Amino acid sequence: MQLGMIGLGRMGANIVRRLLRGGHECVVFDVNPDHVGALAQEGATAAMSLDEFVRALTRPRVAWVMVPAGDPTEQTIMALSQRMDADDIIIDGGNSYYKDDVRRARALKERDIQYVDVGTSGGVWGLERGYCLMIGGEAHAVAHLEPIFKTLAPGLGDIPRTPGREKLGGTAEDGYLHCGPAGAGHFVKMVHNGIEYGLMQAYAEGFDILRNAISQDLPEEYRYNFNVADVAEVWRRGSVVSSWLLDLTAMALAEDPTLSNYTGFVQDSGEGRWTIMAAIEEAVPADVLSASLYARFRSRRAHTFAEKLLSAMRQQFGGHTERPTGG
Amino acid sequence: MQLGMIGLGRMGANIVRRLLRGGHECVVFDVNPDHVGALAQEGATAAMSLDEFVRALTRPRVAWVMVPAGDPTEQTIMALSQRMDADDIIIDGGNSYYKDDVRRARALKERDIQYVDVGTSGGVWGLERGYCLMIGGEAHAVAHLEPIFKTLAPGLGDIPRTPGREKLGGTAEDGYLHCGPAGAGHFVKMVHNGIEYGLMQAYAEGFDILRNAISQDLPEEYRYNFNVADVAEVWRRGSVVSSWLLDLTAMALAEDPTLSNYTGFVQDSGEGRWTIMAAIEEAVPADVLSASLYARFRSRRAHTFAEKLLSAMRQQFGGHTERPTGG
Amino acid sequence: MQLGMIGLGRMGANIVRRLLRGGHECVVFDVNPDHVGALAQEGATAAMSLDEFVRALTRPRVAWVMVPAGDPTEQTIMALSQRMDADDIIIDGGNSYYKDDVRRARALKERDIQYVDVGTSGGVWGLERGYCLMIGGEAHAVAHLEPIFKTLAPGLGDIPRTPGREKLGGTAEDGYLHCGPAGAGHFVKMVHNGIEYGLMQAYAEGFDILRNAISQDLPEEYRYNFNVADVAEVWRRGSVVSSWLLDLTAMALAEDPTLSNYTGFVQDSGEGRWTIMAAIEEAVPADVLSASLYARFRSRRAHTFAEKLLSAMRQQFGGHTERPTGG
Amino acid sequence: MQLGMIGLGRMGANIVRRLLRGGHECVVFDVNPDHVGALAQEGATAAMSLDEFVRALTRPRVAWVMVPAGDPTEQTIMALSQRMDADDIIIDGGNSYYKDDVRRARALKERDIQYVDVGTSGGVWGLERGYCLMIGGEAHAVAHLEPIFKTLAPGLGDIPRTPGREKLGGTAEDGYLHCGPAGAGHFVKMVHNGIEYGLMQAYAEGFDILRNAISQDLPEEYRYNFNVADVAEVWRRGSVVSSWLLDLTAMALAEDPTLSNYTGFVQDSGEGRWTIMAAIEEAVPADVLSASLYARFRSRRAHTFAEKLLSAMRQQFGGHTERPTGG
Repeated sequence: MQLGMIGLGRMGANIVRRLLRGGHECVVFDVNPDHVGALAQEGATAAMSLDEFVRALTRPRVAWVMVPAGDPTEQTIMALSQRMDADDIIIDGGNSYYKDDVRRARALKERDIQYVDVGTSGGVWGLERGYCLMIGGEAHAVAHLEPIFKTLAPGLGDIPRTPGREKLGGTAEDGYLHCGPAGAGHFVKMVHNGIEYGLMQAYAEGFDILRNAISQDLPEEYRYNFNVADVAEVWRRGSVVSSWLLDLTAMALAEDPTLSNYTGFVQDSGEGRWTIMAAIEEAVPADVLSASLYARFRSRRAHTFAEKLLSAMRQQFGGHTERPTGG
Repeated sequence: MQLGMIGLGRMGANIVRRLLRGGHECVVFDVNPDHVGALAQEGATAAMSLDEFVRALTRPRVAWVMVPAGDPTEQTIMALSQRMDADDIIIDGGNSYYKDDVRRARALKERDIQYVDVGTSGGVWGLERGYCLMIGGEAHAVAHLEPIFKTLAPGLGDIPRTPGREKLGGTAEDGYLHCGPAGAGHFVKMVHNGIEYGLMQAYAEGFDILRNAISQDLPEEYRYNFNVADVAEVWRRGSVVSSWLLDLTAMALAEDPTLSNYTGFVQDSGEGRWTIMAAIEEAVPADVLSASLYARFRSRRAHTFAEKLLSAMRQQFGGHTERPTGG
Repeated sequence: MQLGMIGLGRMGANIVRRLLRGGHECVVFDVNPDHVGALAQEGATAAMSLDEFVRALTRPRVAWVMVPAGDPTEQTIMALSQRMDADDIIIDGGNSYYKDDVRRARALKERDIQYVDVGTSGGVWGLERGYCLMIGGEAHAVAHLEPIFKTLAPGLGDIPRTPGREKLGGTAEDGYLHCGPAGAGHFVKMVHNGIEYGLMQAYAEGFDILRNAISQDLPEEYRYNFNVADVAEVWRRGSVVSSWLLDLTAMALAEDPTLSNYTGFVQDSGEGRWTIMAAIEEAVPADVLSASLYARFRSRRAHTFAEKLLSAMRQQFGGHTERPTGG
Repeated sequence: MQLGMIGLGRMGANIVRRLLRGGHECVVFDVNPDHVGALAQEGATAAMSLDEFVRALTRPRVAWVMVPAGDPTEQTIMALSQRMDADDIIIDGGNSYYKDDVRRARALKERDIQYVDVGTSGGVWGLERGYCLMIGGEAHAVAHLEPIFKTLAPGLGDIPRTPGREKLGGTAEDGYLHCGPAGAGHFVKMVHNGIEYGLMQAYAEGFDILRNAISQDLPEEYRYNFNVADVAEVWRRGSVVSSWLLDLTAMALAEDPTLSNYTGFVQDSGEGRWTIMAAIEEAVPADVLSASLYARFRSRRAHTFAEKLLSAMRQQFGGHTERPTGG
């Protein structure tokens, strides 16, 4: 079927490529004409303006917006909706806050434009492996888009079936899922990313403990000089901590077990923060997910005011003068 | 080759089975003669006493001890070593504290008996899938045992190779690894389990947030009634949080998405605790791994004294009388 | 000077009492006429309706709103403002979210009504000891209210002066502080309560460790049967952990060292949650304040879904069946 | 009464001074003869060797050891005990691990030498204010030392009595407490310090949130430029978070609200670590105390291996290249 894509960064462009390979027709637009041109050469229909983009789409139009979350997404969707008609569908495929989805869906609903939010996981691997799609919106709009989702998702592949799944039915094992009304897709994607932070931090702390086993303040016979690349590799085989993130860890450590090219400054995106806010709104204890987020915050500071205050209290109480020594 | 196994619980018995299938000869002993009999019927050589067990082994003897960690392991190894000779090998395949390994290896070394510690991951799945083996001890003893490890480990299988791994060599991608001197195997297994706790808690908190999205203290349009079984399933396909633990989660939720058969009392074994102690000895921040352990501690109490003290302070300061209400 | 008080719960009524004792004139209103009558007997001017309340105040009117945060505060302030004139002052003395203050101040500003937010700490002790006041709003409005704040705050008292404070000047050591524009008072009060949660949890965990020292899974000579009431008392004298919260702890433990009358269900108010949200908006790591909040969330559940999921994963992987046993 | 002091660092010297002022007789020894000479001038009896020290003491001898925890304490006590006789008393006033106390008490008991462990809190303020003393050992030895403890402790002073305390009796409100058998004093001091870490971290995080309120990623009207020195001061007056640590915070912030002279590298001593180990041995959740310790560990590293691994995973999955940007 036909789909329009606005935003041809890595994610948007690869989604278009996977759709083209699947036999779909794609109209593409981006503020950068080079990106448009590149995909036109791969078979997409180029649009050089938003107006042209909308005109090139057949009604009911389907437009996937894949631009940065926040203001760019908000403005693109609003500009787009002003050019669209009843029964057209706007998909927000970015990393929006689910509360923004609810608000936008309600606004568009007044003009009978459908709003569908799609949380997308797959990273740079998605083009080949397929994307895991978490979808929110009205059932009939989601149903209309099913050919798109089927092509983008990984499908059953060679991943073993979950026992009992055959009785449950549904599309989850194809790799896409209608999670609920507007916002539900991004809510599930938000929690997905919150979990991702937690998983990453669990591995990170574990490997930190392995790496520092040699410098332990213990007698020599309790210190170990572990080959962390080999440890990551062996855990991929038959161990309960095997996972895709461990596969990626093994790749990084195989390249350089000291990770000396990485600064250790770690960014965070909105989803990790929103996950904690949702936990607080639900009164759910989320110790691990919070600690994972805070580890990233801390990684981006040389020192916190908090730490200086600790030093200051120690000085005032015990006359301790802190000296910068190793850990 | 020949191997003796002491301790025929689920793990010990399945290791014997996998070795028998691989063409090895196994001498087996257990305090429960029924367990011995069962494995004898599957092709193992039965020993009805420790003396008989030792006599049935050819020198240099290889004896794998697979009994509960702590006193049972300590006593079995000590009793066994008194019956063994120079160049014999004792394998501690249980979940021992690595400092006990160092101490025992040193004690046995005085009589030239080799001590090899093997951390084993694989659960009830290991018999079919193979076990991930983390090994500590002297290089020549570990080398002597290689045929055993090769059979027990999963091997390359159909898991994609880590790029660059072909240049690194070693046995890690076969699923077993000589990690270092005595204690190194159990140290790596300890951290492995510490990570496991963290991964499990990350998923657990995430699904808790999903599950409670319906009861959120927010306007109705922000509440979602998620099908958590479907969410677990869809994440198995192309998402970055896919893992074996997620596969197991999907199985459990496919059986019963309310998990109403589980009490929520969660045990912990020594490794989670020792991981935190190692982190502290190394001055490595381990927020996530600690929080994961504490969540289990808390799960086993109706209420903590800490919580009562919080209530008491609130009462003394603000005259608040706590009433047991929902979260 | 004259002040009107709306909301005569414990906090509102005691503030009126302290003002009356200080020679101020108070007009009082509450939805419950009994509360109004009681304070009228103590010298306040009774108002039986909002209209009567506003009429009884001399211009520029000063009205302190002390009703529950959220909708009651919002509605009261809006109803009140419709009856007020330019240069009148509305004080929100409750526990409002600082973002609501900013919004309300802006709305009232359009009609030249001043909005002052006052975070108040003091609990049931404030009537005698005085209240610590954290104030937000425009400078001239805050200056106008200074006689009120001076009476309510504890003043210098016999608390030793901070060295260097004499050079800094200001009102902080009198116990009230103009913290900044609208919302600043409640922001400081919010963080104050966040810290309070952290302090309480630190004591709570420490006393939990003392209390359980007797049940430690260690040889008998390492177990202690501490008198926690005595420990709290001795720490009040010369120890660095002495504090008002420790005084309150000592009181509660002197009454009953087992705290058996407390359920251990611990409520939380908005400020603890908002503190975490502010930390996240600022990218400040707040591990301790978050953990303190989560401990309260957890205290209000019998078991979390998270814990059941942990049990479920253990069952699926290792065949472990969890049994409810003591910690 | 007579007391010998070994170790004349700041704590040891000040304890001697307070005892001399209280009319006690002190024999003093230190590896640094200058320290001995200084106190001799203030009225103490100088000993220039351990032998001389022991000879100068009247039987039953009382010797207080105040040297760094770990090896120095162990060696001093062992050397001292070899020169002592039945019924003599050795006091370990340092920060020893309580398990070392149990072991040492048992060893000395064989020769009928009494071992008393005294946890001491008071910092540089103790000389004037008195020391809070937490005491472990046999009842008759502790009773024999009571005149010493009475002089060192702050006594009732002008701190308000805890209601009900008059009925409970005991020495706690004098500022010293016999907590239990050997190790009990240091156990209570250990938990005291664990709580101290938690309290400090709670304040530190709170002030960090205040300090960063100006740089919040929010519209301008939600940002505040707080005077943190004034906030600390106002909280000292009538607020529930008032404490000695807050007094010290107010002092430090009055000197320099930016704390720019402090590096933010924060040391930790053994007690914080041992508190966590005790919590783990007791299966008590100690989220806040652990997080406080880890914040100190983290403060002493430029970047952790954990953080680099997070960056590496992000790179492998999403092609994200981390750039060092502000938090």
